[in-house]
Amino acid sequence: MGRVVLVTGGAGYVGSHTVVELLKADHTVIVVDNCVNAAKATEGDGLPPALERVQKITGKTLTFHELSLLNRQALVNVFSKYKVDVVIHLAALKAVGESVEKPLAYYANNITGTLNLLEVMSEVGVKSLIFSSSATVYGVPQYLPADEKHPTGVGVTNPYGQTKYVCEQIMKDLAIADKDWRIVLLRYFNPVGSHESGLIGEDPNGIPNNLVPYISQVAIGRRPHVNVFGNDYSTPDGTGVRDYIHVVDLALGHEVAIAKIFQPDFTGAKAYNLGTGMGISVLEMINAFSKACGKEIPYKIVGRREGDVATVVASCALAEKELNWKATRGLDQMCEDTWRWQRLNPNGFS
Amino acid sequence: MGRVVLVTGGAGYVGSHTVVELLKADHTVIVVDNCVNAAKATEGDGLPPALERVQKITGKTLTFHELSLLNRQALVNVFSKYKVDVVIHLAALKAVGESVEKPLAYYANNITGTLNLLEVMSEVGVKSLIFSSSATVYGVPQYLPADEKHPTGVGVTNPYGQTKYVCEQIMKDLAIADKDWRIVLLRYFNPVGSHESGLIGEDPNGIPNNLVPYISQVAIGRRPHVNVFGNDYSTPDGTGVRDYIHVVDLALGHEVAIAKIFQPDFTGAKAYNLGTGMGISVLEMINAFSKACGKEIPYKIVGRREGDVATVVASCALAEKELNWKATRGLDQMCEDTWRWQRLNPNGFS
Repeated sequence: MGRVVLVTGGAGYVGSHTVVELLKADHTVIVVDNCVNAAKATEGDGLPPALERVQKITGKTLTFHELSLLNRQALVNVFSKYKVDVVIHLAALKAVGESVEKPLAYYANNITGTLNLLEVMSEVGVKSLIFSSSATVYGVPQYLPADEKHPTGVGVTNPYGQTKYVCEQIMKDLAIADKDWRIVLLRYFNPVGSHESGLIGEDPNGIPNNLVPYISQVAIGRRPHVNVFGNDYSTPDGTGVRDYIHVVDLALGHEVAIAKIFQPDFTGAKAYNLGTGMGISVLEMINAFSKACGKEIPYKIVGRREGDVATVVASCALAEKELNWKATRGLDQMCEDTWRWQRLNPNGFS
Repeated sequence: MGRVVLVTGGAGYVGSHTVVELLKADHTVIVVDNCVNAAKATEGDGLPPALERVQKITGKTLTFHELSLLNRQALVNVFSKYKVDVVIHLAALKAVGESVEKPLAYYANNITGTLNLLEVMSEVGVKSLIFSSSATVYGVPQYLPADEKHPTGVGVTNPYGQTKYVCEQIMKDLAIADKDWRIVLLRYFNPVGSHESGLIGEDPNGIPNNLVPYISQVAIGRRPHVNVFGNDYSTPDGTGVRDYIHVVDLALGHEVAIAKIFQPDFTGAKAYNLGTGMGISVLEMINAFSKACGKEIPYKIVGRREGDVATVVASCALAEKELNWKATRGLDQMCEDTWRWQRLNPNGFS
């Protein structure tokens, strides 16, 4: 059944891929985004390029409002204009390193923005929410694979991660206080890849913070080599191991979460890991990408980054059991799809 | 040396006692308060009654602005009017039980309010701050007495406590990002007692959340008996043991923190416990109060409250060493001073 879905941050990387899957599943989509992490519309009232392309991919239309969640009144206006069934809340500042340099901006955008959203939703009586949380809430994992019962908020080493943890706490406390709320917390592991069309993909501002966009920019010739932060971790090849998930699998996780949230017996705030359960090292990723693009990817081993851990891998059994969701796209497809996007759009959306 | 001190929440219980000590130490004091937890001025532009009495006690004058920290522009106006040297940030919603019922109000007031304050301080270049934190950041203590190295944020069971933990994290991250900040986090244990004049004291809205005001209202005849939440804890008499600190000792802790913050070698964000290091059980407190007021205090043993722990006691060695501060007022004085305030003001400030 088609729902009216408001997606905050819907013009971004995860957002645009999520909107594709929502439109394909016949939901009505309203996107709000301040376009801080997404290319803006070339004309005043038009759609940001990522959303133009979402319409092209799907052959369907969506609605867009450029606004910041810090602008409470603008948010009230949007909610008064549409009969929203459920909100997917993706809007956030998301660069770990920048969050250490500008903590107030991160706390204000991510926490105050979320509080504004929750307050407005409470006021208008829209109490169904899917939140983009992160594996970072597990801090330095105490055991692996990390499942949803793993402690959260312990040893979270940067303000970005703290904001995700705090927003989860706020939503859990809210669901305890008001039984009308239905909240799914989706804990993303490491989203990579692009839609198979090559029309949308990750388009980071400045130097990429994440490995795969960085490799991809090296492959296209925008950067000379990949920096590998440490090769003396206790992992098979000494480089850091992460749980990478194809962004289309991740996007589908949001679609099944909508189905879950509207099940009559669903209640409270419930967390689900979205990953593959499979660890991939930095060197494995570089090799796989090299195979996908048919070029050698030069890299240099440099020192460890503060706050990095050896291995983070998800247990995804709960999402499989309760959401009937499982990632199906493997490492090669992650690299091939990323490379297609990069090759067709060497400078992203600009 | 007298400083210009802006005190947020300065009309409240801890605030009014702190302002007394600041004025006695020849500081210039500007109070901002939204008077949610403090009686309002009887006339429009006058001082709230607590601050009128602060002036009476000290023979000195202070400045007051009624405003909420959620009103960013009002805050900007205050900072543009005075050359503030240091901010003592006490303003917060503070009722544990209410925070469970109204989490959004607590998170918004305490975190967004604090973020507004920090942003405005950054903009105007006032980067010296003393923050009223709480022993609640220690959650369920892993060892006792809890010192400042005890983990924080683990097992904090209510939104009120979470907001104190998050505000500490924000301030720590801010001090890492910008070396100009000088921040003292004062972790209060359980403030009780009143100024010896009997002119100011704790004046809770509605049913008191804390033990001593409750006992005091039973003693004056406003309530029939004290509820003792559990007598089967592993403590000497089975009732919960806490570290109660006389509010005048606590107020003096803020004054020494100002001296600390302006020492040339002070840097970053530093936490200090303010307690006595001495545990007092519920029954011991009832008995001591009974002695102070010369009446028997009726009480009933009822079930444990969720989230309560057996014992919380502070290590105060760090404050003694680095702030040259030590609580000197004992249990009898806590009860005598509370009773004087209650007896002279049976209905608080109203």
